[in-house]
Amino acid sequence: MTECMNAVGTPAAHSNALAELLLAADVRGHYSHGLNRLEMYVRDIQNNICDGHAVPTILKENTSTAWVSGNNGLGPVVGNFCMNLAIQKAHQSGVGWVAAKNSNHYGMAAWYSMQAIKHGMMGITCSNTSPLMSPTRSKCAALGTNPISFATPALTTDDSIVLDMATTTVSLGKIEIQRRKGEKIPDSWAQGPDGLPTVDAEVAYNTRCLMPLGGPEEKSGYKGYGLALIIEALSGLAAGIYLF
Amino acid sequence: MTECMNAVGTPAAHSNALAELLLAADVRGHYSHGLNRLEMYVRDIQNNICDGHAVPTILKENTSTAWVSGNNGLGPVVGNFCMNLAIQKAHQSGVGWVAAKNSNHYGMAAWYSMQAIKHGMMGITCSNTSPLMSPTRSKCAALGTNPISFATPALTTDDSIVLDMATTTVSLGKIEIQRRKGEKIPDSWAQGPDGLPTVDAEVAYNTRCLMPLGGPEEKSGYKGYGLALIIEALSGLAAGIYLF
Repeated sequence: MTECMNAVGTPAAHSNALAELLLAADVRGHYSHGLNRLEMYVRDIQNNICDGHAVPTILKENTSTAWVSGNNGLGPVVGNFCMNLAIQKAHQSGVGWVAAKNSNHYGMAAWYSMQAIKHGMMGITCSNTSPLMSPTRSKCAALGTNPISFATPALTTDDSIVLDMATTTVSLGKIEIQRRKGEKIPDSWAQGPDGLPTVDAEVAYNTRCLMPLGGPEEKSGYKGYGLALIIEALSGLAAGIYLF
Repeated sequence: MTECMNAVGTPAAHSNALAELLLAADVRGHYSHGLNRLEMYVRDIQNNICDGHAVPTILKENTSTAWVSGNNGLGPVVGNFCMNLAIQKAHQSGVGWVAAKNSNHYGMAAWYSMQAIKHGMMGITCSNTSPLMSPTRSKCAALGTNPISFATPALTTDDSIVLDMATTTVSLGKIEIQRRKGEKIPDSWAQGPDGLPTVDAEVAYNTRCLMPLGGPEEKSGYKGYGLALIIEALSGLAAGIYLF
């Protein structure tokens, strides 16, 4: 993985950061965020969508918060920078809270929350993503799968609690698997073009309107929508991407 | 409401804190957490389950965090104390994070998160509650409805985003309404005594095993379970109720 990233001009330290992340995802069995995704990162460098050389900068900070620009760098380079900064601030004041703009796909969210465990701390991370979720009562995708991860150490050093989840019921990948198998999907996964839940994996895959966690309104899908909106506020609003 | 609380010996300032909270819930249309609940708070004082006179104390603190004991006081007295402390710390360092033990029912969670808005801040609060939710693949209730609330100010001073939700698909109250109407419930709301989802409101009401947000496993109910577990960690573990 490092050789592939180096081959398209990424500095070795940044290639290593990405490879460590993807390897960790595969080791945890989170294959959708592992080696499987390498091609996407390579292409983003090749197409100048992402700047492999970029190093994040702190735009503003105080005792326990910081506002960072990723300067369009690799997601794991920006993510590691922010998490290290948050941990450093938490050591000093009790909590560290860092928001970043101008970043790219940062991979498995748990990679960042789990870094807190090594310091005996609880870690939280979340990210907004490209639109793929229809808010309750909407026909259109307006929010992303907006993942959140939380990690806490346990009493024994080799134990922990780690949550890492999208705020949609499922990822698009799960729908694709059902589609390939020619099987139906549960009615809480995705909408058809009419804005209603569909059980047809082909229709769901082509419509690309995932339902928020919970599914339809009578099953409290508005809660998943609410969580995605919170994550949008904590990631997007807090990082000033709508204002600056 | 204040007269009822005063009549059972609660100091006026504490009675007022409770009445303001319950009134605000009714004004927001959150009737399950308004005047409707007054009797519960009155009885908790009468039965010495809750100490109406108690004032919270800070057990430990640093620049941006604090650990508080509610000293078994009224939920809103403890909740307001902690939120004020968090806001004060956020003014100083950027973030304030406060965990409380020995508290009681603190009413509508949004009451606390919304206090941050007046200071131009984002607010988060969550609470563990008595067991009522069955984790995925369990027949027994092991976690509470564990609510979380998030509030953020908007560009115009009279606008905001406020989320306030239980991490179960629905509250027990919604099941009771269906039961009284003699109607069925969706399959993502509750389990029967066999640990499987039930659509029978009477069975669901008597079993008292609510399903986590999402519902059954194939509809990602384990995500609602995960969220409830996070909230248990942030409320219970962080407040040291399992260790001290």
